[in-house]
Amino acid sequence: MEQSDLLGYSGALLIRDVQINGKRGDIFIDETGTIAGTGEGIAGKYRGEAEFILDGEGAVAMPGLVNTHTHAAMTLLRGYADDMLLQDWLSQKIWPLEAHLTGPDVYWGTKLACLEMIKSGTTAFNDMYFFMEDAARAVDEAGIRAVLSHGFIDLSLPDKRENECLATEKFVASVKSSGNGRIRAAVGPHAIYTVSPEGLKWCAEFAASENIGIHIHLSETEKEVQDCISQYGKRPSYHLDECGILTPSTVAAHCCWLDEDECTLLGKRNVNVSHNPASNMKLATHRAMPYHWLKSAGVNVCLGTDGCASNNNLDMFEEMKTAALLQKFFWNDPTVLPAPEALAMAGMNGARALKVDTGTLKTGAPADIILISTRTACNTPRHNDTSNLVYACNGASVDTTICNGRVLMLERLVLHEEEILKGSAEAAAQLVRRSQS
Amino acid sequence: MEQSDLLGYSGALLIRDVQINGKRGDIFIDETGTIAGTGEGIAGKYRGEAEFILDGEGAVAMPGLVNTHTHAAMTLLRGYADDMLLQDWLSQKIWPLEAHLTGPDVYWGTKLACLEMIKSGTTAFNDMYFFMEDAARAVDEAGIRAVLSHGFIDLSLPDKRENECLATEKFVASVKSSGNGRIRAAVGPHAIYTVSPEGLKWCAEFAASENIGIHIHLSETEKEVQDCISQYGKRPSYHLDECGILTPSTVAAHCCWLDEDECTLLGKRNVNVSHNPASNMKLATHRAMPYHWLKSAGVNVCLGTDGCASNNNLDMFEEMKTAALLQKFFWNDPTVLPAPEALAMAGMNGARALKVDTGTLKTGAPADIILISTRTACNTPRHNDTSNLVYACNGASVDTTICNGRVLMLERLVLHEEEILKGSAEAAAQLVRRSQS
Repeated sequence: MEQSDLLGYSGALLIRDVQINGKRGDIFIDETGTIAGTGEGIAGKYRGEAEFILDGEGAVAMPGLVNTHTHAAMTLLRGYADDMLLQDWLSQKIWPLEAHLTGPDVYWGTKLACLEMIKSGTTAFNDMYFFMEDAARAVDEAGIRAVLSHGFIDLSLPDKRENECLATEKFVASVKSSGNGRIRAAVGPHAIYTVSPEGLKWCAEFAASENIGIHIHLSETEKEVQDCISQYGKRPSYHLDECGILTPSTVAAHCCWLDEDECTLLGKRNVNVSHNPASNMKLATHRAMPYHWLKSAGVNVCLGTDGCASNNNLDMFEEMKTAALLQKFFWNDPTVLPAPEALAMAGMNGARALKVDTGTLKTGAPADIILISTRTACNTPRHNDTSNLVYACNGASVDTTICNGRVLMLERLVLHEEEILKGSAEAAAQLVRRSQS
Repeated sequence: MEQSDLLGYSGALLIRDVQINGKRGDIFIDETGTIAGTGEGIAGKYRGEAEFILDGEGAVAMPGLVNTHTHAAMTLLRGYADDMLLQDWLSQKIWPLEAHLTGPDVYWGTKLACLEMIKSGTTAFNDMYFFMEDAARAVDEAGIRAVLSHGFIDLSLPDKRENECLATEKFVASVKSSGNGRIRAAVGPHAIYTVSPEGLKWCAEFAASENIGIHIHLSETEKEVQDCISQYGKRPSYHLDECGILTPSTVAAHCCWLDEDECTLLGKRNVNVSHNPASNMKLATHRAMPYHWLKSAGVNVCLGTDGCASNNNLDMFEEMKTAALLQKFFWNDPTVLPAPEALAMAGMNGARALKVDTGTLKTGAPADIILISTRTACNTPRHNDTSNLVYACNGASVDTTICNGRVLMLERLVLHEEEILKGSAEAAAQLVRRSQS
């Protein structure tokens, strides 16, 4: 078998000569896609069992990154509207276009998102959007992991709520029946300003009964906080808590405007918080998620890119850097969110938030592994690999992406890339045409 | 001649099938490295004169980017120290290491910086550091453009001032005598807190007498402003103005803490301001350069990465995005610094600041051209090329880099890349060893 045959390969694989936590070693992946051993001498031990040997050439090996908040199919809206006031942007551009979205659009947008994630070293993501069965089909084909949720929006209308409950139930059942180990469903109440207390309570109860996660936006803007205080007499976290939404299986995105007591509450409830710094900056939330309070409260803080309409890419390496920079700048302390913590946010903490057993290179974990070449300017010199990964490199530094033991990218090549770019470009063009006719 | 022979090539070159300002066309570069024509039908007109034809395959063609504030050789310090308080970082890590810097170190660090810039689409930069004759040698070999200045620091000591004047005179004379059209000298008074008023005045007069530019740091931190008011009874811009430093050939870097009147003064003096958002965020300056006031005052605002100790890369695409995001976030308005203005900052405005005739693809301009493939996720879909370039792509999206008509990168290959990575890594390792012995 040639090296180039390895693209798409899934089977017993020995990766020779990589850097694992600063030490040279090898990785053996067994035929089930599980890491069977890492470190020095692994090559000697497993050479006989390996169907294929991949020469790492001294690359840095690390767990695939985990994007804990995105709307994957919004890749189709990349660059469609920028640099506008939030309300104008939503009401004049984003919502009118989304009104014309179809299942095939979401399929192609999610295909493009998965391609982009594979090319930038992300192997798992937490998604909230519409037509999620089409999204699931795209994720299945791409070979990465996802937790998918139907964006539940009832606008306090009982009929709409009923429909959203049915749509959520139907999607969760379809994911469960598919039996794809890489794809899981979550419940996706959009936010407190789009979902009634009744809707939030139903979501919390349904998630508990199905033993699945919850994915929600929380305190993205100051207006959300002020409106919540006006309407419910309390800040958003307390309102969510009363509705049962704050659980150890909940991922709360944004969280820019939390106060210190809310951070303590999220810590008590073991909620996971997804930081989305690029989106927050682009949409001018004007306040950065209070990382230091969340950290003190013991909250698991992870990282997400948000959708491509407000970022406009899915590069978790860029997002790590933006997170570390924004935290230092806004909270006025260059020691806040040092590189090792930013790296953990993007990997290990994300895996913990999504309850997937990846995020480390330990024996027995699913083989979600990326290789980053050290023969690049961003990794030269090598005073500190972690610093280079967070502050100097971007997603294009990833050479090889493996998910669940399958080689999805090799030497920056991904199967069917041209076809995905063409299909998604055409879907985006048709979507715009439909919205204008 | 094969396509691969084009790497390093300099001569009459026809670039077919590229996107220029949203329209399909061709570019012809004559044997002097000058753009002789662009647009539709250029291929037909110049095919006979072209010694070589490069197929652009529909790539976006744009002027090479211009990095207007960096300390190139600090690539050797990439990742050496991060996440520290500014004073600790400087006094415990950066300065002790810099004390051991040699000319060969600066040569290798600048080689690495030029490689990184070529790979991320930057064809000109404004540099301030030490051992600048070694830096000039590296730039000459790399094939890009630079304005180089010896970092003038007198600490108000007359003897030291005398030495700095001599060093500046010597370096400027050496650049002038070299006759390399891609390399120019500037005078580099470091900042008001490291250079006495006498030193600043000498720099201003010497720059005027030599008809060269001035490169200085201005109002990076709040402390600088407060100390200046304590010592001189005025804000930094007025102090610099009294010393003659504010001229149309001056590039003032950072400018985070300017007040509105200072912006007006810089506008009156036609000073160029270099925005360095990533460095400002990483070092927690806690205030963003007031772009809106500078724009109102008619100041030419350009962009720079700062050195790799405080960024930690030289990617001007990432810097454009960081600039647009930081301005929106800090000044609380998503309409501030829209994508076309960010792109102009990184190109056209930078060229204007450095008084180089690049920054546009107009006929008669030196051929500093980069090609960005459209067959990538960051350029899919193509609702808006400018948005994609600023918000979605990074430097790794650049396929081809041409400076002064010479092809410096082709399909992401650069001549001598391995040698430069090895040489600079070794120089960095030896520098650390020397500092510890």
